Amino acid sequence: MRFYVPTDIYVEKDCVKNHAKEMLAVGKRALIVTGHSSAKANGSLNDVTEVLNNGGVAYQIFDEVEENPSTDTVGKGAQIAKDFSADFIIGIGGGSAIDAAKAMAILLVNPNVNADELHKAPSHPLNHAPVVAVPTTCGTGSEATPVAIITNHKINLKKSIPHRIFPVLALVDGKYLASAKKQLIVNTAVDALAHMVESILNVHSNMLNRMCPEYGLKLWGECKNALIASVAANNTVAQNTSQKAAPIDASLYEKLMYTSTIAGMSIAMTSTAVPHGMSYDLTLSKGTPHGPAVGYFLAAYVEICQKKVPTDVEKILSLLGLQSIEEFEEMLRKLIGTCTVTRELRNKFAAAMKVNRSKLDLVPGGITPEEVEFIYDKSLIVG
Amino acid sequence: MRFYVPTDIYVEKDCVKNHAKEMLAVGKRALIVTGHSSAKANGSLNDVTEVLNNGGVAYQIFDEVEENPSTDTVGKGAQIAKDFSADFIIGIGGGSAIDAAKAMAILLVNPNVNADELHKAPSHPLNHAPVVAVPTTCGTGSEATPVAIITNHKINLKKSIPHRIFPVLALVDGKYLASAKKQLIVNTAVDALAHMVESILNVHSNMLNRMCPEYGLKLWGECKNALIASVAANNTVAQNTSQKAAPIDASLYEKLMYTSTIAGMSIAMTSTAVPHGMSYDLTLSKGTPHGPAVGYFLAAYVEICQKKVPTDVEKILSLLGLQSIEEFEEMLRKLIGTCTVTRELRNKFAAAMKVNRSKLDLVPGGITPEEVEFIYDKSLIVG
Ligand SMILES: [Zn+2]
Ligand SMILES: [Zn+2]
Repeated sequence: MRFYVPTDIYVEKDCVKNHAKEMLAVGKRALIVTGHSSAKANGSLNDVTEVLNNGGVAYQIFDEVEENPSTDTVGKGAQIAKDFSADFIIGIGGGSAIDAAKAMAILLVNPNVNADELHKAPSHPLNHAPVVAVPTTCGTGSEATPVAIITNHKINLKKSIPHRIFPVLALVDGKYLASAKKQLIVNTAVDALAHMVESILNVHSNMLNRMCPEYGLKLWGECKNALIASVAANNTVAQNTSQKAAPIDASLYEKLMYTSTIAGMSIAMTSTAVPHGMSYDLTLSKGTPHGPAVGYFLAAYVEICQKKVPTDVEKILSLLGLQSIEEFEEMLRKLIGTCTVTRELRNKFAAAMKVNRSKLDLVPGGITPEEVEFIYDKSLIVG
Repeated sequence: MRFYVPTDIYVEKDCVKNHAKEMLAVGKRALIVTGHSSAKANGSLNDVTEVLNNGGVAYQIFDEVEENPSTDTVGKGAQIAKDFSADFIIGIGGGSAIDAAKAMAILLVNPNVNADELHKAPSHPLNHAPVVAVPTTCGTGSEATPVAIITNHKINLKKSIPHRIFPVLALVDGKYLASAKKQLIVNTAVDALAHMVESILNVHSNMLNRMCPEYGLKLWGECKNALIASVAANNTVAQNTSQKAAPIDASLYEKLMYTSTIAGMSIAMTSTAVPHGMSYDLTLSKGTPHGPAVGYFLAAYVEICQKKVPTDVEKILSLLGLQSIEEFEEMLRKLIGTCTVTRELRNKFAAAMKVNRSKLDLVPGGITPEEVEFIYDKSLIVG
């Protein structure tokens, strides 16, 4: 059994400003890695640059990270970091920005590795430049994991790279959620939920690392009604523009944020399991955002695991404050709706999944091809 | 709110052997720091030297660490480490050995600091040599904390040094408890209990770091009946030598071990509170072992906190599977008995404690001099 989360994690209002000293101690020249707009809109980019300006740390901004960051993007950012002689990377945003920052941190100090080789297993662990993570969504938990999911479009592959890069510092502030779209908050919160569920329903789960998902699931359960209400209000607004969507309470933002960090710590020690494995094809084929793409498969995965590890499934439901798998399924439907794919795609997904041993081998008690089919039947509408 | 436990922690049977690679990666020349005999008796020293021999890492053994290690001992060990050109320190044993190893790790790479200056606050954080921790008792949690408690006999001071030294690697194996005296296991388990209780009943407690003590208290509660039964059996044996003490189950050893590691993670992020503050004088004056010295004050501290943070106290009792503070008190009495001191000593302790702001300021809602007196009245028998 292993417990290992070396990242120094701070969670609080005005976290970046409060921990300026810790960020400035990481390096002298920073590449800031972020997406096109949200870090500007929610104030996180400004908080970071203010600290760097006041602290005399030079920086360059690379704001071209797309959802599902590609090896091309990562290669481009790393080149800018090299040209700028950056000695550390600051990732600001959701999982895409932070994952891209991690991949660039590898490329920055390993000039003989090029971006398209990032998915190749190295013969020995590679060094990386230090990464500071400032998350602005409540799902990925990338700020507390060593994982970076990168897409290589040349070989149609979306997968975690084999390098392990824990951020040295994570500065987590719920206030960055205030300007986010309600559905984005919900989508990313479903991702965090999946991280904890897949961490427990996992052969790597043990009495030591289980501390994180068990604690986090209870917190997530305390947020669930507000999340459901927020989607319901959002939908009403869509139909009737004279109403405003119900705001999510500010204290809830903080709770959602640190719950997703705890969910990250969970998968840092176990890894994600089958629902994540199934999600990548959906995202690649249909552009489904990560949270829902995972969430569509989650209830059926829990159902399959009930026969294998009934006590664990019972524990998950009880921590969430739910009575049954049916309630779990209904909750997810309210949060993310349903997913329709063609028969052809569905069959292609299932065929590929049945040989994805790296994920299938994580199921406690194993999983049969029939059970894989069951999950697809239960999770996707064919039409 | 901060979460920070950078130590790489492994817990399992044959942990040292299984993680030889991780230990050998730490350095090339080791000073092994341990006590006079227990590391030899329980097999831990042999496990470590076997790994070092097979891995070609040179080592020297310093086996002179006493209970409550002194600045003199630490200074002597550090000199041996320097003479040997050690580049890392391996602490094997209870808190005394691991704390001493941490202090030596400071002295080893800071030749201008001498052992008697270890309690002085440095003007800036000092570097230290890497420390590997192999705990053999289930109480201190020192393998997962940055704390080292060192005694300076010249000024009659037992206190943590102001340097923060997290072990880089902790190898935790329940099997080392098998040869320990039952009362030693109980005493150290009471220390672990106190670490978790004091971590929650603490102004530094928050929704993020509370994860550790809440999880650990539940595990501790699962061990409590076996601990009580083991003391009861031990006492019977003392009276009637034809009986054998009831063995503690081997799977329980592992649980007690990782519970104490989790308890260490708890205080790593909060620090101990009033009962620990009160214990040091008792240990210095009467030689009371650390676990009971803390445990005598624990129930009364919980009682004082009930008025201040009733929900937290209720949570602690419920996680432990107890109905009331009276039950908590009774459990501790069964485990460690009672403590009798002279009126003079009791008054001296209370007077010193009333000005110990560093501990008093940790009480949620504050503590009055009358409440300090109440704790001494309730915890110690004067006679
Ligand atoms: Zn995910
Ligand atoms: Zn202690």
